[in-house]
Amino acid sequence: MSVVQAVSIALDERTYDILIGPGLLGVPSSWQGLPRSSRAVIVTNETVASLYLERLRAQLLQQHAQVDSVILQDGEQHKDWASLNQIIDHLLGTASDRKTVLYALGGGVIGDMTGFAAAIYMRGVPFVQVPTTLLAQVDSSVGGKTAINHPLGKNMIGAFYQPLRVVADLDTLDTLPQREISAGLAEIIKYGPIADAAFLEWIEAHLDALLARDKAALAHAVKRSCEIKAWVVGQDEREAGLRAILNFGHTFGHAIEAGLGYGAWLHGEAVGCGMVLAADLSVRLGLAAPDLLPRLRRLIERAGLPVRAPRMSVERWLELMRVDKKAEDGAIRFVLIEGLGSAGMHVAPDELVSEVIQAHSD
Amino acid sequence: MSVVQAVSIALDERTYDILIGPGLLGVPSSWQGLPRSSRAVIVTNETVASLYLERLRAQLLQQHAQVDSVILQDGEQHKDWASLNQIIDHLLGTASDRKTVLYALGGGVIGDMTGFAAAIYMRGVPFVQVPTTLLAQVDSSVGGKTAINHPLGKNMIGAFYQPLRVVADLDTLDTLPQREISAGLAEIIKYGPIADAAFLEWIEAHLDALLARDKAALAHAVKRSCEIKAWVVGQDEREAGLRAILNFGHTFGHAIEAGLGYGAWLHGEAVGCGMVLAADLSVRLGLAAPDLLPRLRRLIERAGLPVRAPRMSVERWLELMRVDKKAEDGAIRFVLIEGLGSAGMHVAPDELVSEVIQAHSD
Repeated sequence: MSVVQAVSIALDERTYDILIGPGLLGVPSSWQGLPRSSRAVIVTNETVASLYLERLRAQLLQQHAQVDSVILQDGEQHKDWASLNQIIDHLLGTASDRKTVLYALGGGVIGDMTGFAAAIYMRGVPFVQVPTTLLAQVDSSVGGKTAINHPLGKNMIGAFYQPLRVVADLDTLDTLPQREISAGLAEIIKYGPIADAAFLEWIEAHLDALLARDKAALAHAVKRSCEIKAWVVGQDEREAGLRAILNFGHTFGHAIEAGLGYGAWLHGEAVGCGMVLAADLSVRLGLAAPDLLPRLRRLIERAGLPVRAPRMSVERWLELMRVDKKAEDGAIRFVLIEGLGSAGMHVAPDELVSEVIQAHSD
Repeated sequence: MSVVQAVSIALDERTYDILIGPGLLGVPSSWQGLPRSSRAVIVTNETVASLYLERLRAQLLQQHAQVDSVILQDGEQHKDWASLNQIIDHLLGTASDRKTVLYALGGGVIGDMTGFAAAIYMRGVPFVQVPTTLLAQVDSSVGGKTAINHPLGKNMIGAFYQPLRVVADLDTLDTLPQREISAGLAEIIKYGPIADAAFLEWIEAHLDALLARDKAALAHAVKRSCEIKAWVVGQDEREAGLRAILNFGHTFGHAIEAGLGYGAWLHGEAVGCGMVLAADLSVRLGLAAPDLLPRLRRLIERAGLPVRAPRMSVERWLELMRVDKKAEDGAIRFVLIEGLGSAGMHVAPDELVSEVIQAHSD
C-alpha cells in the first residue's frame, strides 16, 4: 500500500481531487493549481489553530497576497447561526469579494460551517477543505453537504456545495485524541456493511493498525471510504434515493446526539452505537443474516466505540427520529442492511423499533 | 396583445413556467402540475396577507391537505437573518419535511427570503413564486437569485435556487401604491438600453398605459422583460460574465439604498436614479452616444422615478460601491451601455465617477 493517495471526484460538470497522505499541509504541490486570487481566509477553531494554522498560512502566502483567519470556538455545540455569522461578518468586514478563497482547517464542524458560509456568501465563493480529523477526512471530503444545526435538529440548515479540492494530511491525525480516532473509524466501518463486504474484512484485519495510526493503513482506509462514498454520491448527488444509504446508523445516531445535547457524544460515537441498533433492526426484519449483529457489534466495540445506547424514553427516541430529514409525512425511515454489502431504506413498525431500542439501552 | 402570457424558462436540467395574466391567483389551472404533497407553507407579509392570503390558501387546499402560513413584517429593512429565522423556525417547529412546498406570496423581499429559506431548509425544498408587485414580477421571476441583506451590504447572503413555477397575477397590481408601480417600471425600462432598443421604444410609446395599469400593456411588458432576462441568464446562470449586465444602474443604486438605510428609497427608485448616473458615465467614457442620457432621464422621470441622487460625500459613495458583489480586488466595476441595446462591465477612474455623482446629486 502506498502512503500518498489521490481520489478524483467527478460531480456535475466539476471535478475535484482529494489528496491523502502524510505531510501534505507543508508541501507546495498540495496547493498548486488552486486559484491565486489576492485574498484567502482560513476558518478554523481554537484547538486546531494552535497546532496547524501557521503552517497552513505560510503555505498559502505563496498563493495569495493576503491570508487571514477566523478562529471559532471548538465543538459541535457551536455549529450554529452565531458561528456562521462570525464567518460572514468577517468576510463582509474585510470586504472579501467573490474570488476570495475560504479554507476550512479542522474537523467536520469547521468543514460544514465553512462550506455553508462559502455557499451563501455572495451566493457562492470558492473553498478548499483541509480536514484534520479522521471523521472529516472520510466523511466531509465527498458529497458537498454543508450545514449548521438548529436547536430542533442536526444539519437542518445547509446547502449542497462542492470544494475545489480536499487536502487530507494524515499527520494532522497524530494530535487527535484517541476518542476521535475511534469516532472516525465508525464512518469507515460503515462502508463495509452498506457497500463492500471485502472492505469490512479488511477493516477487521487491520483495525489494530488503524487504531495505532499506521499511515499506510489510514491512507487505504480513507481512500477506500472516499471512493465508496464518491460512487454512491455520483449516482445520487441530491439524495433522492441511493445516497441515503450513507446514513446507515445515523437515524438512531442523530437521536442520541440531539437527545443528549450536541457535543455529549461525538458524532462517530453516536453513529457507531446507531449502527448496532440498525443492524439489529435489519436482522429482526429478516433483511440481514443473524450473524451481522454480533459481528458488527464486536468490530464497533474493538474500535473503542459505545455499543449501548443512553437511557431515553421510547417516546423521546421516536419524537427525535421523526424530525430526521429522511422522514416523510411523519414516518421514520431507516437505512437497513439487505445482506452484507448492500443497504436500502425501510419503514419499521414502532413496536419493533421500540424493542430494538430497549434491547441495546442501559 | 393577449392578456394571458406564459414564458418557459429552461435552466440546467430543469424547466419552469412563468404564468402572467389577470386573475391567476384564483384559477385552479395556475397550480395544476405542481407537487401535491401533504403540506404547504405560504410565506407572506402583513400587508399582502390581508389582501390575498385567503384566496391563495383556498386554492392550495386543492393541492395540499394542510396549508399554513408565516406572516413576516413588511419592508426591505426586514430582509434579514431575523425574518429568515422566523421562516426556518416555523418549518422546523411544524416538522416540515423535504417535500413541503413553500409559496412566496409578496414582493421581491418575500420572494428572495422564501427562496433562500427553501434553498437552505434541509438543503433544499421545492418552492413556488407568487409575485404581487410589478418589480417582483419582472425581476424575481427569472434567475433564481435568492438572498437576505447584511448591515454591511445588500443581498450579501444568498443562493442560486430556482422555483418550480412563477404565477404572476396582474390583478394583484391593482392594490399596489403608484410609487411601487413606478419602482417596477425602473426594472422594465432597464431591459431597453442593455438588450433591446425596440423594447425601449415600445416602453416610451406605452408608458401612460403602463402607469394606468392597463392589463394588456402590463402583460407584454412583464413577458418581454422575463424573456430578455431569461435569455441573459440562460447564457450565464452563475453570473460569471454576461449576467452582470442585468445590474445596469444597480451599483449606484445599491449605494443609495445602503447609504440612506434600506427602505428609505424603494429598490426600483434607487435603480432608476442609478441608471441616470450609469448612462452619464457611459457617455463620458465614450461608450454611448450623448443622447442616451437625456432620453433615458426623461423616460425615468415620466415613470415617476427620482433622477437626482441624495446628498452623500463622494468618499461614502465609493466606500459603499467597493463592497458591491461585482467589485474585484477593491476595484468598482460598472455595467455601462455600449451603444443602445448592448452593455458590458467597465472600470472607471474614481475622478470620473465622482464628477458623475456630483452632476446628478442635490
